[in-house]
Amino acid sequence: MEIDDEILTEFYDNRYAVQGMLIYKKNALLVVREIQKILEEKLEKAGHEPVLFPVLIPEDILKKESEHIKGFETEVFWVTEAGNNKLDKKLALRPTSETPIYTMFSLWIRSHRDLPMKVHQTCAVYRYETKQTRPLIRGREFLWNEGHSAFKNSEDAEKNVEDIIKIYGDLLNELCIPYRIHRRPEWDKFPGASYTLAYDTIIDGKILQIATIHNLSEKFSEAFDIKYEDEEGNHKFVHLTCYGPSFGRLLASVLNIHKDDAGLKFPAKFAPVQIVIVPIFAKGNKEGVIDYCRKIKEKSDKFRVVLDESDKTPGEKFYYWEKRGAMLRIEAGPRDLENNEVVVVRRDTKKKEKIKIAELTDEKIAEIFKDIDKNLRESADRKFNGAIFKANTIEEAKAQIGKGIIEIGLCKDEKCKNEIETYASVLGTEEKKEKCIVCGKEGKVAYIGKTY
Amino acid sequence: MEIDDEILTEFYDNRYAVQGMLIYKKNALLVVREIQKILEEKLEKAGHEPVLFPVLIPEDILKKESEHIKGFETEVFWVTEAGNNKLDKKLALRPTSETPIYTMFSLWIRSHRDLPMKVHQTCAVYRYETKQTRPLIRGREFLWNEGHSAFKNSEDAEKNVEDIIKIYGDLLNELCIPYRIHRRPEWDKFPGASYTLAYDTIIDGKILQIATIHNLSEKFSEAFDIKYEDEEGNHKFVHLTCYGPSFGRLLASVLNIHKDDAGLKFPAKFAPVQIVIVPIFAKGNKEGVIDYCRKIKEKSDKFRVVLDESDKTPGEKFYYWEKRGAMLRIEAGPRDLENNEVVVVRRDTKKKEKIKIAELTDEKIAEIFKDIDKNLRESADRKFNGAIFKANTIEEAKAQIGKGIIEIGLCKDEKCKNEIETYASVLGTEEKKEKCIVCGKEGKVAYIGKTY
Repeated sequence: MEIDDEILTEFYDNRYAVQGMLIYKKNALLVVREIQKILEEKLEKAGHEPVLFPVLIPEDILKKESEHIKGFETEVFWVTEAGNNKLDKKLALRPTSETPIYTMFSLWIRSHRDLPMKVHQTCAVYRYETKQTRPLIRGREFLWNEGHSAFKNSEDAEKNVEDIIKIYGDLLNELCIPYRIHRRPEWDKFPGASYTLAYDTIIDGKILQIATIHNLSEKFSEAFDIKYEDEEGNHKFVHLTCYGPSFGRLLASVLNIHKDDAGLKFPAKFAPVQIVIVPIFAKGNKEGVIDYCRKIKEKSDKFRVVLDESDKTPGEKFYYWEKRGAMLRIEAGPRDLENNEVVVVRRDTKKKEKIKIAELTDEKIAEIFKDIDKNLRESADRKFNGAIFKANTIEEAKAQIGKGIIEIGLCKDEKCKNEIETYASVLGTEEKKEKCIVCGKEGKVAYIGKTY
Repeated sequence: MEIDDEILTEFYDNRYAVQGMLIYKKNALLVVREIQKILEEKLEKAGHEPVLFPVLIPEDILKKESEHIKGFETEVFWVTEAGNNKLDKKLALRPTSETPIYTMFSLWIRSHRDLPMKVHQTCAVYRYETKQTRPLIRGREFLWNEGHSAFKNSEDAEKNVEDIIKIYGDLLNELCIPYRIHRRPEWDKFPGASYTLAYDTIIDGKILQIATIHNLSEKFSEAFDIKYEDEEGNHKFVHLTCYGPSFGRLLASVLNIHKDDAGLKFPAKFAPVQIVIVPIFAKGNKEGVIDYCRKIKEKSDKFRVVLDESDKTPGEKFYYWEKRGAMLRIEAGPRDLENNEVVVVRRDTKKKEKIKIAELTDEKIAEIFKDIDKNLRESADRKFNGAIFKANTIEEAKAQIGKGIIEIGLCKDEKCKNEIETYASVLGTEEKKEKCIVCGKEGKVAYIGKTY
């Protein structure tokens, strides 16, 4: 089911006067901040230093690596004027930052002692999308983190790809987002990369690419002349890798993968409101109950907690906060006050539990949250695994298109690939023999699906 | 004294191919992150919601308020092309965000129940500076936080100005940056504001504006048609205020105000490295000492702590880390190991203290840091107050120009003002009578100084 517009307006506003550019609001920024915090911490622990490069890239720098610019040239926003002057040199809004960062790598890297050099930046990038834009999923301005690293040789670069796979995996695990990593086919790799690994998840049967890792080998270091002197005094090109997840798409995945008929659900760490306290006073000691609830709120201030003191009925409040994905509801009435108890209701299972107030510790809440995450993860995984199919014929494949990821056999013939790509995208291929479902000749395993 | 280039390269690189646009590096981002965290927390506690608006502003929106665009039009970067297309409508890189944000305020605000509406965003803004650029101080891309708020009436708006004065004051207090708030003269207010308050600090005798608060009254709400329905059903224009500190200039202030002959100093919270541990082993149990130091490091992991295991001499390490403003040095040698002691040396006073390892708790360190901050603040205040002068004649004023802030008398006559502005800027005026130092006629108190 679709998410209510009323709820989405708490995340973003899509009515801004530049098409495809979103206004991020409070709830989106809360989720994005958490993602950013987790990711930056992990990257820095793995030796990345934070940097922030200018948004503008001079035309000659952007065009230095020929395959790269070919891939982006139809998508670049150009600054051509400043004040009342026409600029001598056009400046691009960064569509991605390989070219400016590698310009500086060529100054920063001199010796093998400078390697590995790993940097990351969280920023917005700009692409003049010609496809239809779609909030969080396809925008002309989007938020991401991009990592860029230089290594002495291909082994170190490959090792870094493994490290990043682990880091992104940990982040996606915290977000409870199921995914598959596909090695993109040659015609769909990042412009300038020797190979591209892409993280694909499934939303409503369609494939959403949420992150990528590119091994650039020596192509960019040749274009940008990034050399180091090795232990023997030889000058060699560095091996580069780059990688990034889209924060907007991660947010879109969290919103769409975990929701149920009652509304949004979040892995607890990412819920804009984690706990809602609802005072219940049909009759009885109203002031005492409110006071009791306020104390509970104070006690739980490590979390994002709201005490709903509005004059809605408890039922209305339940409904309101379930829709918004408050993952734990604490109810307290006059009887609870007398007994030093509260009723605790989980958003995922709706299970009610009466517990003593003294037992409602931060640890207890953290424990419930951990179990909620586990439950969300398992249920998302079940759904994801149920959307993976195997097709032995074109007809079988067609029947599943738009429902998930389909494993097929595909040969090298351009005609067979084109036939498949009339109704689906090839997400990745594997070095495993399989009969081509188009022509029947020998081919390899491929994964296809309808993409966003 | 100047800060070493070697040290500055750990904060930024100024060699990027777009003039006036800086590459922020690790140490700068650490300080900026702390500033951002403190400020955002305070603003949100005071009822501001975080937002993030697109960087691009359509020409017609930027030009809606006539005074405003007049103030910025020579400084705007324009996107005129995208992909291979010429755009129908030019798009500005935001020089500031009043116009896009107030476009949305006119949609978001309907009733008195929507007020006050307070938002803030941390972002980069773009100004095609015609004056000479200077790292962190005058750039064509700079980082800031901007707050924007709408109120029912001027009293509420004024009250908010007071709240922001408190918040910015608290932040500057944490940064130990002394400042004066000047009400800018009419000819120097923010384009479109009814008045501008500016935060001025002093670096090397010259005045640096580090933050501003603008009361926009109803001017922008008329231009953007931002009305609310009051309790009686009347439609009224909201009162707007906006405000922002420059993160680059705050960083420049921290770097330049606290430094001494040995190098950088920081209020402890902002030091890129807060604690350095130096093992001392001219002779004796080297492995034991290293092990001991590692344990100390682990124990202190709430702080940004470095254990310097390089093969420099202790003296070289002291020198290296003093220059970089590591605010606490912990030394440990074989004798200390035996006695379960360490030597603790403060970066500000250089005072040495031998303490038992059991006493080196997080609380003890926090206490030392608090005292360091107090000391830095007092010493910065002393220097600042020593750079405030009073001049009764033009000659007296001229003798102090370039040395700080000078209080003078100035009349309304355009000629007198122009005379002063040939060698200094008028920072602010006060409603207090004083004889004009140019013509001798009755005037008011004014503050002048040489600005960056």
